Amino acid sequence: MINNALFTDFYELTMAQGFWKKNMNHKTVFDMFFRSHPFNGGYSVFAGLEPLIETITNFHFEKEDINFLKEQKIFEPEFLDYLSNYKFSGSLYAMSEGSLIFPNEPVIRIHATVIEAILIEGMLLNMVNFQSLIATKTARIWLASNKAPVLEFGMRRAQGQDGAMSASRAAFIGGATGTSNTLAGKKMGIPVLGTMAHSWIMSFDTEEESFEAFAEMYPDNATFLIDTYDSLRSGIENAIKVGKKLQAKGKNFAVRLDSGDLYYLSKDIRRKLDEAGCQNAKIVASNQLDEQIIESLVLNKSPIDSWGVGTQMVTGGDDSSFNGVYKLVARESENGEWTPVIKFSDQPEKMTTPAIKQVWRLYNNDGSFKADVITLEGETIQEGIEQTFYHPSNNYQNFKFKPAKVEQLLKIKIKNGERVCEKVPVIKIKEHLATQLEKLDYTSKRILNPHIYKVSLSKTLSELKKSLIAQKPEF
Amino acid sequence: MINNALFTDFYELTMAQGFWKKNMNHKTVFDMFFRSHPFNGGYSVFAGLEPLIETITNFHFEKEDINFLKEQKIFEPEFLDYLSNYKFSGSLYAMSEGSLIFPNEPVIRIHATVIEAILIEGMLLNMVNFQSLIATKTARIWLASNKAPVLEFGMRRAQGQDGAMSASRAAFIGGATGTSNTLAGKKMGIPVLGTMAHSWIMSFDTEEESFEAFAEMYPDNATFLIDTYDSLRSGIENAIKVGKKLQAKGKNFAVRLDSGDLYYLSKDIRRKLDEAGCQNAKIVASNQLDEQIIESLVLNKSPIDSWGVGTQMVTGGDDSSFNGVYKLVARESENGEWTPVIKFSDQPEKMTTPAIKQVWRLYNNDGSFKADVITLEGETIQEGIEQTFYHPSNNYQNFKFKPAKVEQLLKIKIKNGERVCEKVPVIKIKEHLATQLEKLDYTSKRILNPHIYKVSLSKTLSELKKSLIAQKPEF
Repeated sequence: MINNALFTDFYELTMAQGFWKKNMNHKTVFDMFFRSHPFNGGYSVFAGLEPLIETITNFHFEKEDINFLKEQKIFEPEFLDYLSNYKFSGSLYAMSEGSLIFPNEPVIRIHATVIEAILIEGMLLNMVNFQSLIATKTARIWLASNKAPVLEFGMRRAQGQDGAMSASRAAFIGGATGTSNTLAGKKMGIPVLGTMAHSWIMSFDTEEESFEAFAEMYPDNATFLIDTYDSLRSGIENAIKVGKKLQAKGKNFAVRLDSGDLYYLSKDIRRKLDEAGCQNAKIVASNQLDEQIIESLVLNKSPIDSWGVGTQMVTGGDDSSFNGVYKLVARESENGEWTPVIKFSDQPEKMTTPAIKQVWRLYNNDGSFKADVITLEGETIQEGIEQTFYHPSNNYQNFKFKPAKVEQLLKIKIKNGERVCEKVPVIKIKEHLATQLEKLDYTSKRILNPHIYKVSLSKTLSELKKSLIAQKPEF
Repeated sequence: MINNALFTDFYELTMAQGFWKKNMNHKTVFDMFFRSHPFNGGYSVFAGLEPLIETITNFHFEKEDINFLKEQKIFEPEFLDYLSNYKFSGSLYAMSEGSLIFPNEPVIRIHATVIEAILIEGMLLNMVNFQSLIATKTARIWLASNKAPVLEFGMRRAQGQDGAMSASRAAFIGGATGTSNTLAGKKMGIPVLGTMAHSWIMSFDTEEESFEAFAEMYPDNATFLIDTYDSLRSGIENAIKVGKKLQAKGKNFAVRLDSGDLYYLSKDIRRKLDEAGCQNAKIVASNQLDEQIIESLVLNKSPIDSWGVGTQMVTGGDDSSFNGVYKLVARESENGEWTPVIKFSDQPEKMTTPAIKQVWRLYNNDGSFKADVITLEGETIQEGIEQTFYHPSNNYQNFKFKPAKVEQLLKIKIKNGERVCEKVPVIKIKEHLATQLEKLDYTSKRILNPHIYKVSLSKTLSELKKSLIAQKPEF
């Protein structure tokens, strides 16, 4: 993990010097939120918080970093002295890692002086955006498979070394059973799994010999890769021959399909296995899979028992980034009062929601999620009382609801620079997500055209936002 | 950089134990190659070699790694002893980093025992696939901009920390002028650059004050971000007001567009700047740019001087992986003879080209690239003599050509585990690519429907491949 505070966009440093010189290093509040779900989905998964807390609480400049900045010839010695002693001394509020999150609600809220807040921006977004992308992608894949075992083996196509390590973590949170990445297994306690490669088979004179040798060594974990020569005419025949010997010893086996039409092959191979008396043998499929392909195979009843997913799971495929942003929402004025801040833009969807805010999740009577509501921090939403909530940008839309239960989602994790929450093991984060997914209505989990889950504003916040828009300078 | 040999797919370790137990740790040759260009492009850029050499020559297991493997309960103590002493002692041949590369030709060739060869597979593909993806994407963006200054500032949307660090390196090789990632600047000697953020402007009572404060601090680097309130009615007016004071001191300035229609805005802003006597002021554009958008803006003569690109450059956008693979192509038999190996598959395009091979680049009389030809290692292609070269899979296609010049592309970089080549600074790699791009015909560099650059086989290799296909076992 990079704890080096130079892992920041250069403009943060030039702006930081500006605030420092102008004596403007005031207290501020920044929100991290995102604008739309990746993959045209109906939900996203928050991931990356635990490593983020570790990194923020250790973020610092080394002497040689300061020397590097000195060489840029635009920083003053006193400012560089300030940076030498830099340590994040602010506070961080966040949702629990593994929570379902929705557009435009704060997922993380940072209270810090403006310099401390901006120096962590790039690092924070880097970590949270990527892990949230991958956890979200994996949750989609896992649900598409009907919660079948899904193995992440994307290391070779991941975006760099940490692209592999962080992806293994996020994919495990999102629903993957384990990873092929041995180092991720060791460092993060994720189960490591694997089958065999074509190079194994090609190192023997015949496919059968290669299967024999493998079964002899790993009688409890024999998954035969059957497409090196011809899946239907060579691979499955040899797998059955060797597999039946394992069966005779009371062991089971599996075959792995890695090319060709997975529906056609799995049907034929299931039939061949059954006819040979190998009803317990499993079929594993891989080869450029994503949630759409898996869903289609599952809905069409392809007899595939588990899935190996690489590229799409660890990179997000054609949606390769999570659009989380980090925006100033309030700043302390000279007189010690907090001023809510709003950002306009030439694109209305880039307008922000001002002020220090809390996010509430409202529950239906059956324990499922109804909607999220953003309020000012300090406001309360009461259970069992019908209230009206407002659309974040359309003035004419609102809804009335009597929540059976409410929950405040943003909780303090770092206080004055120190971690004030327990470390959460990755398996707990995974379980939290699984529970969250059960509480979200099916229509919002649908892969195609999901139902939009509501994120509304309280009356007070909605009116504050409108009043700031009304104050927009006229040109 | 991870030099930990656990950064490997778990099945490599189980297979390795298999080879070890079976006394089959024979010498092998593996090729790294790729099957198709990303981005529907006509060329790819080879990147990641220098960090790969560093990593391979330092790849090893620590004691705690061995303990972790012991806990998996499937590895024998003697094999774990073998791993404790593991060091890559083989050889690596590769093209020069920054070279243009084409499908199905070996880019890297590994000579090693099978165990040594497979343990580096995941790490090698991880590093080369990602950096090649990003260098290729950036080259496309840079050419689309007509080689204008292009700034990489993707850190916050990059896939993890190394996703940002390695991307900064690869983007610089591909043509980016510099990066916003300060740590990448320090570690790899890449120029660091930056402008200002919305949070700077929003920390002042007025936009004009924020520009004034910035210009006062950074009179030589003032780029005003003009879309916080309204680009045309507020931002550009304030930028001109403050910029003219800079001009009066003999300084220049720039404005940055970060939202809205870049064509419409840049035209209007150029006109406003010119009318105000700021003909020298530059226009920088950003906001979800990629090579298609930039090409369209450039062809339509948008007056944009330089470009800031984030997400698309550092992740590849909707093509988020480079499909490099690593395949066994020859193995030494018991009797010490080399046997070429071919992999079939249920998908013909996944068939490999067997044997230990060399790649030759053939030149036209004007010094431009004509085609690449793969031969057996040891074969020679002579300059000035017409020869026939063969399509790698279609039997009926071939072409005759008299190369004005030929060049062997695969050169030794690691010999018996030790680096035997000079370290190449990243700026030299960047220059090498720029030269290569000049030698590639425009039709292959086109963004839409590029011309396919030929990769052919020598007669000997073509016939060897055909004979191995003919020997495919009948079922």
